[in-house]
Amino acid sequence: MNSSLAQRIRIVLVEPSHPGNIGAAARAMKTMGLSKLVLVRPKRFPDPQAEWRAAGARDVLERVSTTSNLREAISDATFVVGTTARARRMAWRQLSPRLAAPEILVKAEHGEVAVIFGREADGLSNDELDLCHLHVCIPASSAYGSLNLAMAVQVVCYELRCAYLEGQGEAMHPLAWDRPRATSEQVEHLFAHLESLANSLEFLPGEHHTVVMRRIRRMIGRIEPDVTEVSMLRGILSAIEKQIHRA
Amino acid sequence: MNSSLAQRIRIVLVEPSHPGNIGAAARAMKTMGLSKLVLVRPKRFPDPQAEWRAAGARDVLERVSTTSNLREAISDATFVVGTTARARRMAWRQLSPRLAAPEILVKAEHGEVAVIFGREADGLSNDELDLCHLHVCIPASSAYGSLNLAMAVQVVCYELRCAYLEGQGEAMHPLAWDRPRATSEQVEHLFAHLESLANSLEFLPGEHHTVVMRRIRRMIGRIEPDVTEVSMLRGILSAIEKQIHRA
Repeated sequence: MNSSLAQRIRIVLVEPSHPGNIGAAARAMKTMGLSKLVLVRPKRFPDPQAEWRAAGARDVLERVSTTSNLREAISDATFVVGTTARARRMAWRQLSPRLAAPEILVKAEHGEVAVIFGREADGLSNDELDLCHLHVCIPASSAYGSLNLAMAVQVVCYELRCAYLEGQGEAMHPLAWDRPRATSEQVEHLFAHLESLANSLEFLPGEHHTVVMRRIRRMIGRIEPDVTEVSMLRGILSAIEKQIHRA
Repeated sequence: MNSSLAQRIRIVLVEPSHPGNIGAAARAMKTMGLSKLVLVRPKRFPDPQAEWRAAGARDVLERVSTTSNLREAISDATFVVGTTARARRMAWRQLSPRLAAPEILVKAEHGEVAVIFGREADGLSNDELDLCHLHVCIPASSAYGSLNLAMAVQVVCYELRCAYLEGQGEAMHPLAWDRPRATSEQVEHLFAHLESLANSLEFLPGEHHTVVMRRIRRMIGRIEPDVTEVSMLRGILSAIEKQIHRA
């Protein structure tokens, strides 16, 4: 994420009780390109557990700001998102992290955005959720939907990063092959070579030969070989031929 | 996720060193509807730290299976996915978790699927990645891309659940095959056969041999051969051997 955009998205943890979760949240953020962390009345912070779990994200911890209430943590934000596990008595605008992420990025183009996570034990209160423009709910299992706090931070930050990369037309398709694919003609030469070896092996008589060659063709179609692979396979065929003809 | 589908997707942790990560991974899985966890040579397990971090997912820990090597953990799998943080020297089929998830679900409709996560410190080795049909890479920040192990499990399981909920599985990859896919073990027997033929051909000395065998492994991974294809290929290898030894 470009750093000015990332700087306008803060993650707010309300009354986290385990310092390990603070460190793990910092690490989760940094792996996804975010770094602005605000803590509201943390139970224990700073703490060696937080340091340890932050691993390579201690710089995020060093720049943490701490506030004594949520309103202060979000006072300059123009868009506030609250995460919630449950459906509430009064319906609010609510989206999955996937659908919320592009909207959060757009809001961050225009102002400060806060994404708030509640207490380990019981999340955000209704009053706190009422401060939000949007609620985000991770689609967890109905049998056991209780994500660890830092895990929830990881999922939301991951979605923010994916939305950012998609917006850049980037990297959601990380497949880059190192060699050019073989052309049809190169592959046909490989088949011809295979066929001539099969003939000299004389173990595939008649119709069986046709079936086997079709199966081989089907397999090579699935490989979509590159040019190096085609020439390697032909090299192997030649080596086998040499060995047989030496006989 | 429906439970029979979930039962065919196992999460494999290779040599996890922190029991806390095992517990956190179990919790991450359960929140996303998965429950089959396999540990390869865990450093400390069982352990109170694992119990504590598992929270409401202790039942997942109770049903963990532990193996002494990765091959054993995946022997009956027909589709094997390895997670990786880095680009490798030799390109392999690689997707983001988002693009991989629907494919993993489709494979799980037809057989056992293993999703493998490497060591906290240095991930999966090249040899371990070579056992995989597909590599999955979480699009993390280039400045700091090191996700905690359990966080990576959370992100991948989250994408599996999203794909399941979106119901994209069937529609995106209408996979209909007439024969069952070969298991990892059957394919390993094919490699052993190939290797012994290559040795008797004596045309691949030293390091070249290793490179060629890896390329062949990569190609066969892309084929995802069915049982008939594996026995056909082995029949061809035997025919070549007979011809050479007749010499």
